[in-house]
Amino acid sequence: MSKIVNRHDLDFLMYDVLHLEKVFETEKYNSFDREAVTAILDSAEKIAEEKFLPCAAEVDAFEPLFEEGRAITHKAIKPALDAYIEAGFLGAGFDEDVGGLQSPVTVQMAVNGLFYAANMPAFGYAALTIAAANMLNAFGSDEQKAIFLEPLLEGRFFGTMCLSEPHAGSSLADIRTKAIPQNDGTYSITGTKMWISGGEQDISENIVHFVLAKIPGGPSGVKGISLFIVPKVRVGDNGDLLQSNDIVLAGLNHKMGNRGTTNTLLNFGEQGECVGYLLGKPHHGLQYMFHMMNEARIGVGHGATMLGLAGYLHSLDYAKERLQGRHPTEKNPETPQVPIIKHADVKRLLLAQKAAVEGAMCFILYCAKLVDEKAVASDESTYRQLVVLLDLLTPVAKSWPSEFCLEANKHAIQILGGAGYTKDHPVERLYRDNRLNPIHEGAHAIHGIDILGRKVRMGDGAAMDILKKELEKTVEEAKSVSGLDDEVIAFSNAVEILFQTTAKVIAEGDPDRELANATLFLDAFGHIMIAWMWLRQGVALKSSGEKYDSSYISGKLRAMKYFYAYELPRVNLWLDIVGRMEMVCADMEPEEFLST
Amino acid sequence: MSKIVNRHDLDFLMYDVLHLEKVFETEKYNSFDREAVTAILDSAEKIAEEKFLPCAAEVDAFEPLFEEGRAITHKAIKPALDAYIEAGFLGAGFDEDVGGLQSPVTVQMAVNGLFYAANMPAFGYAALTIAAANMLNAFGSDEQKAIFLEPLLEGRFFGTMCLSEPHAGSSLADIRTKAIPQNDGTYSITGTKMWISGGEQDISENIVHFVLAKIPGGPSGVKGISLFIVPKVRVGDNGDLLQSNDIVLAGLNHKMGNRGTTNTLLNFGEQGECVGYLLGKPHHGLQYMFHMMNEARIGVGHGATMLGLAGYLHSLDYAKERLQGRHPTEKNPETPQVPIIKHADVKRLLLAQKAAVEGAMCFILYCAKLVDEKAVASDESTYRQLVVLLDLLTPVAKSWPSEFCLEANKHAIQILGGAGYTKDHPVERLYRDNRLNPIHEGAHAIHGIDILGRKVRMGDGAAMDILKKELEKTVEEAKSVSGLDDEVIAFSNAVEILFQTTAKVIAEGDPDRELANATLFLDAFGHIMIAWMWLRQGVALKSSGEKYDSSYISGKLRAMKYFYAYELPRVNLWLDIVGRMEMVCADMEPEEFLST
Repeated sequence: MSKIVNRHDLDFLMYDVLHLEKVFETEKYNSFDREAVTAILDSAEKIAEEKFLPCAAEVDAFEPLFEEGRAITHKAIKPALDAYIEAGFLGAGFDEDVGGLQSPVTVQMAVNGLFYAANMPAFGYAALTIAAANMLNAFGSDEQKAIFLEPLLEGRFFGTMCLSEPHAGSSLADIRTKAIPQNDGTYSITGTKMWISGGEQDISENIVHFVLAKIPGGPSGVKGISLFIVPKVRVGDNGDLLQSNDIVLAGLNHKMGNRGTTNTLLNFGEQGECVGYLLGKPHHGLQYMFHMMNEARIGVGHGATMLGLAGYLHSLDYAKERLQGRHPTEKNPETPQVPIIKHADVKRLLLAQKAAVEGAMCFILYCAKLVDEKAVASDESTYRQLVVLLDLLTPVAKSWPSEFCLEANKHAIQILGGAGYTKDHPVERLYRDNRLNPIHEGAHAIHGIDILGRKVRMGDGAAMDILKKELEKTVEEAKSVSGLDDEVIAFSNAVEILFQTTAKVIAEGDPDRELANATLFLDAFGHIMIAWMWLRQGVALKSSGEKYDSSYISGKLRAMKYFYAYELPRVNLWLDIVGRMEMVCADMEPEEFLST
Repeated sequence: MSKIVNRHDLDFLMYDVLHLEKVFETEKYNSFDREAVTAILDSAEKIAEEKFLPCAAEVDAFEPLFEEGRAITHKAIKPALDAYIEAGFLGAGFDEDVGGLQSPVTVQMAVNGLFYAANMPAFGYAALTIAAANMLNAFGSDEQKAIFLEPLLEGRFFGTMCLSEPHAGSSLADIRTKAIPQNDGTYSITGTKMWISGGEQDISENIVHFVLAKIPGGPSGVKGISLFIVPKVRVGDNGDLLQSNDIVLAGLNHKMGNRGTTNTLLNFGEQGECVGYLLGKPHHGLQYMFHMMNEARIGVGHGATMLGLAGYLHSLDYAKERLQGRHPTEKNPETPQVPIIKHADVKRLLLAQKAAVEGAMCFILYCAKLVDEKAVASDESTYRQLVVLLDLLTPVAKSWPSEFCLEANKHAIQILGGAGYTKDHPVERLYRDNRLNPIHEGAHAIHGIDILGRKVRMGDGAAMDILKKELEKTVEEAKSVSGLDDEVIAFSNAVEILFQTTAKVIAEGDPDRELANATLFLDAFGHIMIAWMWLRQGVALKSSGEKYDSSYISGKLRAMKYFYAYELPRVNLWLDIVGRMEMVCADMEPEEFLST
């Protein structure tokens, strides 16, 4: 049994639930078909299993070293990334005209998921490079692309995103890094960037930083942020590496997880010799960054899901093998011990994981497919609809798996007991790695404010209207097959409460009251999305005839029923608090937390 | 602000809520009074802050080494423990006739809590020694006590509990360690013990293992388990250390947290030279172990609570200092950033921690006080009532903080964001340390089976009857003060559902259905106990007149309201599943989890 993927379930989600084959029928993606994707995934699985998985524990145990201003990464990381790059995965998602394979995002995500599950910190360097190359490809000038895009897509250069500073993490309005225009059209960059993943390493020939900075004299706040290409080593017009670009590694952060990815503090331009190249127009930096953020955020949710899946697969395997105790009614201690998968609570902990990870996986792939549909939209109206729907769902795609697949990893440890608490098994590492995901790419609460304060209101609720039609479509489909009546009722009720609560909050008028429980709204929204995905899976299973093994079908249906019985009812609790605009937290005064 | 305790709140709980002064009025404990306890806590706080807290991060970073069959602990651990021992805390809870200070358990727990919060892994050695000495004191022969008790209470010898074996963790019926009677009345011990905390170390002169083993020919299963005193180094009648007792350290486990406490694999009697001394009667071992387990289990819950408290205090401090962002309505980026404690979701994360840790602390101290009341019970009926009530509540005292104060630690990380994910702050360590608590001293699910399968049924529901009277007492008190009407209604409803659900489950008759959701019953029971403790705190606060600062009172009342608004309603969801005996998990077949 693979410890990183259930290929069969992945196919079920991609084709039977989401009908990815329709994407392959479009002109842009018509060089792909199911057979080709299977071959690509075969190849990716082999590399992930052979190069990334075996060194995952070591990469965690021996974190990068800070030596003489350089970051020394674990020796197994470069060969693993080389194998990924040599197989052509790094640039696969890019269009053919820039040297990519023009792979649908859904396929690229399915591929990359295998590497997240096998070794998230090692794969992190590639994920960052893809995101950086995406941004350059979308907004760079021809000249910038001529110099930097090819080496990024070939993996000779890696990329980073430099947003945060020591005093400005969530609050980008307050960044202080400066970009002073020079006579030759370049900018002189000075400032300190914090929490930069992959900000220094000894793997690639060069590093291309995408740096947010302010051009003096521009507007204050986020409206004055520009985006710069800042290479670690300067690059000549012919692609030659020239002199160092005055970027100093000031330190590495020591983290509880995701330890193989260097996390750096970088000083730009201490000697006044750091050259940056403006990407796009001045003061549009955050807009460009956000343009790319959707995919990056779905990627975070995807990573969280895959860590959850890896924990599920490992704990399932353990539960089948580990003998311990007997059935509660078996009083004779002379009878043999049973595998712990026979114990009711172990089943519960496994089913909770299955419901979370297979539900989240479906949602992530659904969002990825929206990105693909957007790329091939036949008309502007369809395109706009997809854009706003994606905008609405992105905070959920990022946040729900980060929170609830972390919970799945907690369950995986519990199944292994004392063994799960040791470094002899990967589950504790997966739990530590996954704890990062509710923090980075926008902390959990930021997405709550985003969805309730902005996304549900956009265009007078346009995105919510589109979503509602999609949800109703599934309800109609579910009504047309037998055996999903209970789920249809529960789901419809939850959706109704969601829309009622949203309307009530928007009508309130006092932002403090409206946003007082935005995080609970985010979680409730996410639970309803996952319930939706399970209902869609239910429809597909009920319609599958004799295509699948009966235990595959009954197991999936049980996971759906688990989610509806144990998780979906939480939505009422959360939305009740959101809707009545409970102020017990928001009204708390700082001195009330601890005084005498 | 202390990072390990809120002494003011501790006093409020001990005296205003739980009226510990009544314990001091009894003959057994009349050498204690509030003033004396304050002085003891002052001294403990000083040692915890000066000796245990400063080395906590280092003790975590540099786990014990396995060198030439020996375990080398971090060099800061011994001096810290020496200070604890020299202050007389190790034996303080023991009666004066064996050289202790005859301290009430509640006081001893309050003292030890400071060390848990400061450095749980370093303190672990002392906690284990106290538990071992307790067992020896209760069941040892005069001769055994003469040899081993004094050195244990003086901290020259440390103690351990050796229960688990590689193939038998939760299932003690299956242990294989053998004890063969010898002509001189001793036993020859052979076997392998796993997960033994403190099983080897370089801190104390000797280690006294309390080992579960089977005497051949005895009954099978748990009824054939006996308990043995097995010193690492043999001890002469005069207390001299003699030769090594043939116990080999086979390995150390490398854990995700609690890393300073060695966790060992021990081989007993590989050369046939391991001597054990039977404690009490043959085949009564598990009974003795369980006798002491109640206190040990309350201790685990206490440790979990203190780790939760330490995380709360640290994240509160950080939230007050860290500037980031502005109020959602403040659109001018030129205004200064605000401390993050001003943000609604940070308040929620802080209030969630406060509600969990101050609720759990109250419950732990309540249970500790029941132990004290038991020790001074004036008649057999009172004593019996306290025994069964404690039996009922112990699984909750162990489990609730282990689950929900771990959640509190998760929130603490979230407040610190990226910083919380690094080793620069203690919150990620506290989270890792606390992840142990739902695993050891009976995994979480074991306590669910214990409470729903056994404890609520004992003596035809005798314990539940006693509990009900206590709960009703609080309801009456709450009705007599103004301002708690909503909480009285919510609490009474939750209690009613708890008792109805319990009756329904007991009446079912099919153990599979009855216990299918025992863990959810445990969590629901715990939530109701914590709601009870908050109602008791509410009564005390409402009755306190002008004794307290108004922000102390309003802050505590808000924490109560938070728990009632955000947490207590989960009870309905859980008990609905328990009461309808939902079988979606229990009926799951192993092959349904993953098939094609």
